[in-house]
Amino acid sequence: MIKLVIDMEGSDFGNKETTKACLEFVKDYKDVKLILVGKTSEFKDEFVNYSDNIEFVDAQEIVPMEVSPLKLLRNTESSMVKGLNKVKQDDLDGFVTAGSSGGFITGSTLILNRMKNIQRAAFCAPFVTKIKDKQTVILDIGASNENTPEELVGFALMGSAYAKTVLNIENPSVYLLSNGSEKGKGLKNIVEAYDLLENEKAINFKGNCEAREALDGTHDVIVTPGFEGNIFLKATEGASKMMNDLIKESFKRSLFSKIGYLFARKSFKVMKDTLNYKKTGGAILLGIKKVCVKAHGNSDSYAFYHAIRVAYLMAKNNIVEKIEEMFDEHDGER
Amino acid sequence: MIKLVIDMEGSDFGNKETTKACLEFVKDYKDVKLILVGKTSEFKDEFVNYSDNIEFVDAQEIVPMEVSPLKLLRNTESSMVKGLNKVKQDDLDGFVTAGSSGGFITGSTLILNRMKNIQRAAFCAPFVTKIKDKQTVILDIGASNENTPEELVGFALMGSAYAKTVLNIENPSVYLLSNGSEKGKGLKNIVEAYDLLENEKAINFKGNCEAREALDGTHDVIVTPGFEGNIFLKATEGASKMMNDLIKESFKRSLFSKIGYLFARKSFKVMKDTLNYKKTGGAILLGIKKVCVKAHGNSDSYAFYHAIRVAYLMAKNNIVEKIEEMFDEHDGER
Repeated sequence: MIKLVIDMEGSDFGNKETTKACLEFVKDYKDVKLILVGKTSEFKDEFVNYSDNIEFVDAQEIVPMEVSPLKLLRNTESSMVKGLNKVKQDDLDGFVTAGSSGGFITGSTLILNRMKNIQRAAFCAPFVTKIKDKQTVILDIGASNENTPEELVGFALMGSAYAKTVLNIENPSVYLLSNGSEKGKGLKNIVEAYDLLENEKAINFKGNCEAREALDGTHDVIVTPGFEGNIFLKATEGASKMMNDLIKESFKRSLFSKIGYLFARKSFKVMKDTLNYKKTGGAILLGIKKVCVKAHGNSDSYAFYHAIRVAYLMAKNNIVEKIEEMFDEHDGER
Repeated sequence: MIKLVIDMEGSDFGNKETTKACLEFVKDYKDVKLILVGKTSEFKDEFVNYSDNIEFVDAQEIVPMEVSPLKLLRNTESSMVKGLNKVKQDDLDGFVTAGSSGGFITGSTLILNRMKNIQRAAFCAPFVTKIKDKQTVILDIGASNENTPEELVGFALMGSAYAKTVLNIENPSVYLLSNGSEKGKGLKNIVEAYDLLENEKAINFKGNCEAREALDGTHDVIVTPGFEGNIFLKATEGASKMMNDLIKESFKRSLFSKIGYLFARKSFKVMKDTLNYKKTGGAILLGIKKVCVKAHGNSDSYAFYHAIRVAYLMAKNNIVEKIEEMFDEHDGER
């Protein structure tokens, strides 16, 4: 039985969409127990038929979006902190939230702790690409600001393990995000990480990748320091949103364009499906002793369902053990 | 008379599109002299009616896309190096090329030299935004990798001068690209630059800007270290290209979607115009004693015309002197 703690609050929609998602999930997966943390009186009744798969923990408070580590840890009545403590105390498999990213990263690291041998946890997002259903794993996208070359090697190992375990890619290709594809391009830590990765037998290292090509669907894992990963993530989101808004405006502009939309609608749905990031299930904190998944703050039940699904797959496939094994091998090599 | 040296070669299309662009330009602007450097025998005849506005310098070689500084400077028969030397020797106003970016940055810096008081030149691109005809100036996008806080302040001054002089924005708003909007977010050099910029009277500093909002049309100038600027530039290009490809595929997918295109075509043309980066005229190297403009390698005559136009406007409005004045004031304040 996979046991996951779910933070029911902290999403932009309160516990409405998270409740729907959890209900769907326990209908679809029988070997799972979800421990729901939040304002339980508001959603308890929905789960009467699933008492074998559901447990409740009451928590009345919600961690604010911007929160300092100290304030977070003091907020012991919040659904996030109560949830993380529950995972730790009962030695459960993982934690899923749509709440504050900062709170999630700090809380997971401080309460659940890093795996042995891991210097830094990485915030890792599977990105949708130009190719339908092909995801590219990019890490770190903002758990750190700066990272040492050794930390970048750690990210490569963890990203590789994730791509193998959850995305079922046999020998995932690993790239470094840089400002040129040639060896020697980029910041000092990236140039040094290149040298280390070339000699890392556990990894199928392919060299540098430029931001322009990152989402063309030909890369499995892309490694970057956190600050640059965050710029990449948000630049991509911003440009995609701009294009999306302009497409909508274009179809709405005139009577003719509206008619055009009626004809092209079905075809544009394929594009929408290709770019449907909701299926990726949000971002993952890799390097922590338990599975930790962060859904988008504005997740609807579909997106949140997929966040739970990612956590379930990670736990089911023993990703924590797999990463530990990779690091053991890596250290053995030295 | 504004005197600009034009590198006729080095574009992906040889001298074909550059010739067309120069012809158009001397038809439209009478107070300009263009000194055309390249395989002159191939395009000389086109300009017989414009002998007052045109001069020729023969150069048979082309700088390759990837070139080391040493190799560049030794390539004295190339159109780029000959062109830059011509600007220097005859004290002309500026230089325009569609050739190698690396060669352009190195060559401009080493042959034409930086202005006094400028620690670092910045590669600066005006980006199209969600709002039609509103450009946002972002620098540095890759002349440097890392930059000190003081260099970032210099970029802010130069970007401000460019926005005032060429884009006619009276009191341009200036932002720092970071991973959060609050003060204190980001890499050490960005946090330190924030403090310096808050006290910089010559600049209308507005704080941090996240990559997600950068192109929403509400920012005039955004300052970033070169490596992160390059990631931003290429992530934006990559995402826009992906969306563009998917739009095209969507319209081509079925008979219905093709009919839809016929109806919506006119409306989508407005979107295309909004995103038409060709009007921005490529990128500019700010901080050099002469005007230096780099058109995209794949510029057609329209894009190259606009690159010449940006150089013309910069020279006509004495941007070099304006930047020097800003730096003098800035130093006086200290």
